[in-house]
Amino acid sequence: MNEVELIKLILDRLGTAGRDAQLQIGPGDDAAVVAWKPEEEMVVSTDVCLDGVHVPKDCPGDLVGYRTIAMSVSDIVAMGAVPRYLTIALTIEQADVDWITAFADGVRVGCTEADTTVIGGNLARGVKQIAVTAIGSVPKGQAILRNTAQPKDDIWVTGTLGATSLALQATTKWSPRGLSELKRLTSTDVIARYLLPPIRTRFVDCVRECASACTDISDGLAFELEQLVSGSTYGYTVETHEIPLWPGAELKDVLANDDSYEMLFTSSKDKRKVVLISAQRSDVSVSRIGTVLSSSDRIFTPNHDGISSISGYSHF
Amino acid sequence: MNEVELIKLILDRLGTAGRDAQLQIGPGDDAAVVAWKPEEEMVVSTDVCLDGVHVPKDCPGDLVGYRTIAMSVSDIVAMGAVPRYLTIALTIEQADVDWITAFADGVRVGCTEADTTVIGGNLARGVKQIAVTAIGSVPKGQAILRNTAQPKDDIWVTGTLGATSLALQATTKWSPRGLSELKRLTSTDVIARYLLPPIRTRFVDCVRECASACTDISDGLAFELEQLVSGSTYGYTVETHEIPLWPGAELKDVLANDDSYEMLFTSSKDKRKVVLISAQRSDVSVSRIGTVLSSSDRIFTPNHDGISSISGYSHF
Repeated sequence: MNEVELIKLILDRLGTAGRDAQLQIGPGDDAAVVAWKPEEEMVVSTDVCLDGVHVPKDCPGDLVGYRTIAMSVSDIVAMGAVPRYLTIALTIEQADVDWITAFADGVRVGCTEADTTVIGGNLARGVKQIAVTAIGSVPKGQAILRNTAQPKDDIWVTGTLGATSLALQATTKWSPRGLSELKRLTSTDVIARYLLPPIRTRFVDCVRECASACTDISDGLAFELEQLVSGSTYGYTVETHEIPLWPGAELKDVLANDDSYEMLFTSSKDKRKVVLISAQRSDVSVSRIGTVLSSSDRIFTPNHDGISSISGYSHF
Repeated sequence: MNEVELIKLILDRLGTAGRDAQLQIGPGDDAAVVAWKPEEEMVVSTDVCLDGVHVPKDCPGDLVGYRTIAMSVSDIVAMGAVPRYLTIALTIEQADVDWITAFADGVRVGCTEADTTVIGGNLARGVKQIAVTAIGSVPKGQAILRNTAQPKDDIWVTGTLGATSLALQATTKWSPRGLSELKRLTSTDVIARYLLPPIRTRFVDCVRECASACTDISDGLAFELEQLVSGSTYGYTVETHEIPLWPGAELKDVLANDDSYEMLFTSSKDKRKVVLISAQRSDVSVSRIGTVLSSSDRIFTPNHDGISSISGYSHF
């Protein structure tokens, strides 16, 4: 069984323990949505950052701290929600005070940028791993799901894709630098871009104003494109030359294995101008890369051969 | 540095990222409390269940699932709050479908008992570990903290203590049985009592009606007693023969290393009757084991020697 099948199995077994009258959106999307206040819903997501998987082994604490926050906040933003609170569970092999101090520093920088607050956590001895739960808020009924794209909608992506796969290929040559130095290099250096994903909280308004569906890119573009139409009979066409590739990045790598934490979203054609204006207002670049199809076709033009069968990253 | 010192270090480094105008109670108590609705506060706690630490290595999935839920819910109950929602992040070495299925079954049973809903999660390949975030609710201003005990308050504890230390000593002889069989044995069998802690959601009303301070017992009674007076100049006296020991359990073990997830709370002397009635209503036994002192003394009678220096479990 792969990851998606295992999750489905778990949800089946949970039965009524996975359902609740207040639960608007349950497990399966970027985050859950709970009716909590009359005018506002609570959006909750949990993510795990694994040493050697989501960050290189022996990665400095401040970089791990920042990346962990960026990864978690990304799921909330992809719902069109504002991230508010985080809990952080850190397990670590030993009481490495320097690493833990640096980790907390990276968390602080990430939280300040995302305007979120750490409200609790857990510290235990174990294999290094960080589990973060992010809690956000969205006006009632306005959360944006990942699979509600409509035929003829444009498909958009923020920023550029591909730095992360280049960085992973270069990991062995990687020499650690400090958070503040790397922060200045995220638009030019693949390692900086990989370790310090963009925190797209300023893009929340655009998602909510414009998106008919949205997800963040953490498991490769091919996998995330599938999310947009999952559960429907729709398909999509992607113009591969419109995908905003990081210089030197290859399309195949981006499709198979990208965790740039950029936003992938769909929007009605008549909102093209609004998307561009809203994105500019939040200082985020956007690229229109394709269209949702009413048929179930998956078409990549002009280079269909060899890429249509690429699927995304699976832990299992 | 020990666990408590490390957590303090982290909170210091977080600075303003650990503070927020809506945050009534930040990191450090059993759970955080956030002003979210006018009449209700949100209570949030994160816990990690480590394979080989919080559960025996190779423990069947259903038992791990149940125990994980019980551990998490316990922190919310100790705040006098009703557990509502959970997220569960499971990392596991391989796609062991049988184990994962059993785990989900145990989670379902625990959630049903606690009347909580799993709203999200994460699944990844890694060393087996489960991080749970529990979200509860409490009427505005009514959350019960762990360190607000007042001099002359009675000190109470629910249930019986000591089965868990007996079980840990017996781990090598441990033979796994199914969840439903063990559930019937939690009042007679140490292994059953250890693996399947009580889910004290019915006791929430008693905590909120009666307790001046409350915490759950997860790191030994000595450590938890300290929580009741931490940050104050108060102390306590404990009548050791009043501690409700599991048959065969030793006082020293209970003080040093008990994770029975019973509630330890303080209550004004004039509420003694209310405590007893309220506890009876929720079908939970309670024992009055001591008194909060206005002095900073820590007195154990009649067996003071050899136990006053016992501290609780620390991961580091």
